[in-house]
Amino acid sequence: MKKITEIIFLLSLLSWTSYAAVNDFCVADLKAPDGPSGYPCKPINEVTADDFVFSGLVEGNTTNPFNAALTSAFVTDFPGLNSLGISAGRLDIGKGGSIPMHTHPGATELLILVEGEITAGFMTPFHLYTKALKPGDVIVFPQGQLHFQVNSGNEKATAFLAFSSANPGAQLLDLLLFGNSLPSEIIAETTFLDVEQVKKLKARFGGIGIVSS
Amino acid sequence: MKKITEIIFLLSLLSWTSYAAVNDFCVADLKAPDGPSGYPCKPINEVTADDFVFSGLVEGNTTNPFNAALTSAFVTDFPGLNSLGISAGRLDIGKGGSIPMHTHPGATELLILVEGEITAGFMTPFHLYTKALKPGDVIVFPQGQLHFQVNSGNEKATAFLAFSSANPGAQLLDLLLFGNSLPSEIIAETTFLDVEQVKKLKARFGGIGIVSS
Amino acid sequence: MKKITEIIFLLSLLSWTSYAAVNDFCVADLKAPDGPSGYPCKPINEVTADDFVFSGLVEGNTTNPFNAALTSAFVTDFPGLNSLGISAGRLDIGKGGSIPMHTHPGATELLILVEGEITAGFMTPFHLYTKALKPGDVIVFPQGQLHFQVNSGNEKATAFLAFSSANPGAQLLDLLLFGNSLPSEIIAETTFLDVEQVKKLKARFGGIGIVSS
Amino acid sequence: MKKITEIIFLLSLLSWTSYAAVNDFCVADLKAPDGPSGYPCKPINEVTADDFVFSGLVEGNTTNPFNAALTSAFVTDFPGLNSLGISAGRLDIGKGGSIPMHTHPGATELLILVEGEITAGFMTPFHLYTKALKPGDVIVFPQGQLHFQVNSGNEKATAFLAFSSANPGAQLLDLLLFGNSLPSEIIAETTFLDVEQVKKLKARFGGIGIVSS
Amino acid sequence: MKKITEIIFLLSLLSWTSYAAVNDFCVADLKAPDGPSGYPCKPINEVTADDFVFSGLVEGNTTNPFNAALTSAFVTDFPGLNSLGISAGRLDIGKGGSIPMHTHPGATELLILVEGEITAGFMTPFHLYTKALKPGDVIVFPQGQLHFQVNSGNEKATAFLAFSSANPGAQLLDLLLFGNSLPSEIIAETTFLDVEQVKKLKARFGGIGIVSS
Amino acid sequence: MKKITEIIFLLSLLSWTSYAAVNDFCVADLKAPDGPSGYPCKPINEVTADDFVFSGLVEGNTTNPFNAALTSAFVTDFPGLNSLGISAGRLDIGKGGSIPMHTHPGATELLILVEGEITAGFMTPFHLYTKALKPGDVIVFPQGQLHFQVNSGNEKATAFLAFSSANPGAQLLDLLLFGNSLPSEIIAETTFLDVEQVKKLKARFGGIGIVSS
Repeated sequence: MKKITEIIFLLSLLSWTSYAAVNDFCVADLKAPDGPSGYPCKPINEVTADDFVFSGLVEGNTTNPFNAALTSAFVTDFPGLNSLGISAGRLDIGKGGSIPMHTHPGATELLILVEGEITAGFMTPFHLYTKALKPGDVIVFPQGQLHFQVNSGNEKATAFLAFSSANPGAQLLDLLLFGNSLPSEIIAETTFLDVEQVKKLKARFGGIGIVSS
Repeated sequence: MKKITEIIFLLSLLSWTSYAAVNDFCVADLKAPDGPSGYPCKPINEVTADDFVFSGLVEGNTTNPFNAALTSAFVTDFPGLNSLGISAGRLDIGKGGSIPMHTHPGATELLILVEGEITAGFMTPFHLYTKALKPGDVIVFPQGQLHFQVNSGNEKATAFLAFSSANPGAQLLDLLLFGNSLPSEIIAETTFLDVEQVKKLKARFGGIGIVSS
Repeated sequence: MKKITEIIFLLSLLSWTSYAAVNDFCVADLKAPDGPSGYPCKPINEVTADDFVFSGLVEGNTTNPFNAALTSAFVTDFPGLNSLGISAGRLDIGKGGSIPMHTHPGATELLILVEGEITAGFMTPFHLYTKALKPGDVIVFPQGQLHFQVNSGNEKATAFLAFSSANPGAQLLDLLLFGNSLPSEIIAETTFLDVEQVKKLKARFGGIGIVSS
Repeated sequence: MKKITEIIFLLSLLSWTSYAAVNDFCVADLKAPDGPSGYPCKPINEVTADDFVFSGLVEGNTTNPFNAALTSAFVTDFPGLNSLGISAGRLDIGKGGSIPMHTHPGATELLILVEGEITAGFMTPFHLYTKALKPGDVIVFPQGQLHFQVNSGNEKATAFLAFSSANPGAQLLDLLLFGNSLPSEIIAETTFLDVEQVKKLKARFGGIGIVSS
Repeated sequence: MKKITEIIFLLSLLSWTSYAAVNDFCVADLKAPDGPSGYPCKPINEVTADDFVFSGLVEGNTTNPFNAALTSAFVTDFPGLNSLGISAGRLDIGKGGSIPMHTHPGATELLILVEGEITAGFMTPFHLYTKALKPGDVIVFPQGQLHFQVNSGNEKATAFLAFSSANPGAQLLDLLLFGNSLPSEIIAETTFLDVEQVKKLKARFGGIGIVSS
Repeated sequence: MKKITEIIFLLSLLSWTSYAAVNDFCVADLKAPDGPSGYPCKPINEVTADDFVFSGLVEGNTTNPFNAALTSAFVTDFPGLNSLGISAGRLDIGKGGSIPMHTHPGATELLILVEGEITAGFMTPFHLYTKALKPGDVIVFPQGQLHFQVNSGNEKATAFLAFSSANPGAQLLDLLLFGNSLPSEIIAETTFLDVEQVKKLKARFGGIGIVSS
């Protein structure tokens, strides 16, 4: 009979290990609306091991004009990440391919090169920080910095990515400038690009512009 | 046909730019209950430019016994501020007017004087930090410090305010002490004010006391 | 009539003291789902003094095999604590009793000894930080560290506890290792314990294992 | 010989358990200047168990005009608290004594009553939240709220305090208003107190005013 | 003699209001190195009211090719802002002038228009959020978003700015892309700009490139 | 001559892009003492691309009794990570190998399996969350949870790791319990292990105990 008593006591010791343990983890209830610090917590009795595992961070299809593919494991695919301040991705870039200039306004990115050669870097107003990376090299792009990744080798390149947010946004510079309804004259005035250049790129990217005003 | 392919690819690059981008911004859904880090996010497809713009930070009506007016642009008026840790206000003080002693328990305040002269300051147990401000002067009242603003010039004074919170509370000392049901004897005992002084001010401010117990 | 005008003006000064003052406090609405930064806020007009007071942090019943009792005052019992980053507890340990090894993954713990003698400490991979405490001694167990408390005196010992979280979880090492469905062979392999020892303790604690996979 | 190899391997597993473990704990080097998030860390090889233990949270001397005593265990006395967001205190109030109105601009306070009766509370512009506390009651004063504690019983009262900061400041209202060089006229204007009352209290508290300008 | 005793007692009540009050404020010691959460604190006895006041947020000189001027009040000019998460600026744009596309990777910006008309906005990959602002309008640019400001009226425009950081960085897009040693071919490849356009702008902005590798 | 004027103007626009940009990044000055939020910042003119790149996250040597190797890229090796809340590692486990039970008190861990099969999981008092992982699977171990990794396949396994801290500590359970001077009797009492088992493991791990008291 001792066992029962002990377990009851241990359970009572744990009476404060409440089922809504705000500090230990909070698996996303993805059906509820998102909030400033993440999604509300799924009831603990509905949480399973599958909430903490994501499958499919495998090689993407690079047969596109850019010879590149990005795969992501963010909180919307992987509810166990909620509020933990971390997520993952995978980058495949074929020979001659590249990932265009972009920023992540809400996350630092870490890139671990596992195969091939990637030249990557970020810029501040006065400096360029760049390097040709070999397998086993890791580069960090601090939060909000404009950065790029180019396959500078003779073969396919593969990297794993980690982000300091469960749900990092990505902002491709061309879509910001040319993919919406911002008038060509304002773009030209505020970027110093020639209007013809702006119009050419708006023609290329502008079809997806959605006006919000 | 290349354009379509490119856009599809760019969109796939952006597949992780999910519509619930927790880190980029989270416009308040003001109909939902508030939480410790702000309001839940409005669905991104309901967000418009108007969520990020507030109109009406103009001169207030100072024809009142205090010759002063405060106007605010906080998250409850301006849902784009949600969780961004900033908000704004405007202060107009007529000649001879002042803003009584108060604190903001959850926000630092920055005051930018644009017209007239204001003498403002805050106190710690051992020091007074105060200055007569001229247009172009900026003063900071660190979070939670008791502070005051007095028109010390010969004309109307105007200032813009910024707060380090999307929804700063304001606590006027007189309302804290004399505007509720706290018994006069306890007030006198814990402030060293004379009981007659307390009763006089309770008569002035006490009508709005609401007992919570 | 002046009084009315003044109060109206003061109220207008307070127009920004909105009822959803995100920064001042946010009493938990315990009927709503928890989130990463705590519970949503209860409407301010439903908040009473009772939300900020907890009753019952009194001596627990130590007539159990461990001669010990833990009592807690966490947000789930005490909604005024929501998002304030603090909570309380009380520990009573009879002569010869002890609290087994455990961690709080999301909170630092402070123990204030008020009666008797407790030997307590925590460990890092290279060091043991321990002390026999007398009444009036305070010890801190930094967040996430494995720690223990043993009554090392000749009488009952009592301590008050504070945690740097409104809702700290507690993880008893024995329940982590022996109280669930983790196979004995994996436990033995990853702890270097003998399999017989593992099986003996699983028999003692294992009845409450719940498989999640 | 196996043992040596194993330990070397375990040490190598721990090679990343660097001596400057920024996340685990950071004991204050109190000889270095303080910073926004606390003191710099003491070298780990100088850290001892004594850094995590404070002695002396015992009954204070209440033979003063206020029949009250406060004792504190903050980071400046107790370097192991550095950056952990928690600290402790003890409050003794003799019969008829009280602690005057004050705020902690940077910390929430938790009061655990262990002996006697204390009536305590805090105020917002529209409400008073107060209660007569019995032993075993806990009350929370959210960060930055003006609050008070009065011995409302027939005997000495004792409470333990916890704060959500390693180094909470305390601001006694009388010292803020009357203990420095703020001119009586400005105090009267911004508090609505009578000038005579202000002068009376400045005479009582004003001797310690230090002008900073 | 009572006064002395009382003050001594009040001082002892304040014994915990230590001079290094980590939570109340921490004025920057600008001669010490900066850290992740700001500058170390200046000793409290060297702090004066001047640390909390900045003078000079006045109209800038707009007689330059861009008809625009920016003035700032950041922690490096204004040490009282240290770690308080707020700072200020002033923007003057002459008729026909504009501020080029830029981001603040570490701060949200609030713009309060006081005179003239400014059309301002920010872009996400799929949307443009923009508005022509009138005096009294406030617009928020969430942290890290690419944004612009154009004088769209017939007269000079003036705005006050607030930032959610004591020391916001500013990244002008043209300097990021064309002001450093990043090779024209990589810029063209990762922005889809024509190489001739890139070379033209590098010639215009490239003189200040500094290679870091 | 226009170019010079423009650049001077742009530089003046950037006058607030101070060299100590607290928000953009803060590369660690590893010669200075660590603090609660990381290392002080290296002067910006000493920062190079190499600060943002780490080389050597390659296969470790698994010819040891555990058939396992861990390699890390933390702030102490990689100063650009300072205060960015992220770091990386690599795990190689030979056939039959495993990583013993451990916690990271200050970081969430993400494991990306790239080769072989690893069975990994973590435990709470009532549940086990575990899974046999295939290449392309990602698992998250929330901050402070006790977890393990076992090679459950027929070949070598390789994984990349990311942590939500620039400098995560690692606490191997055996070293915590058996690798220091904690007396066998206290270990037995607070873990329910048999004393003989404790002594056996202390003999295996105890040689590196360092007493701190």
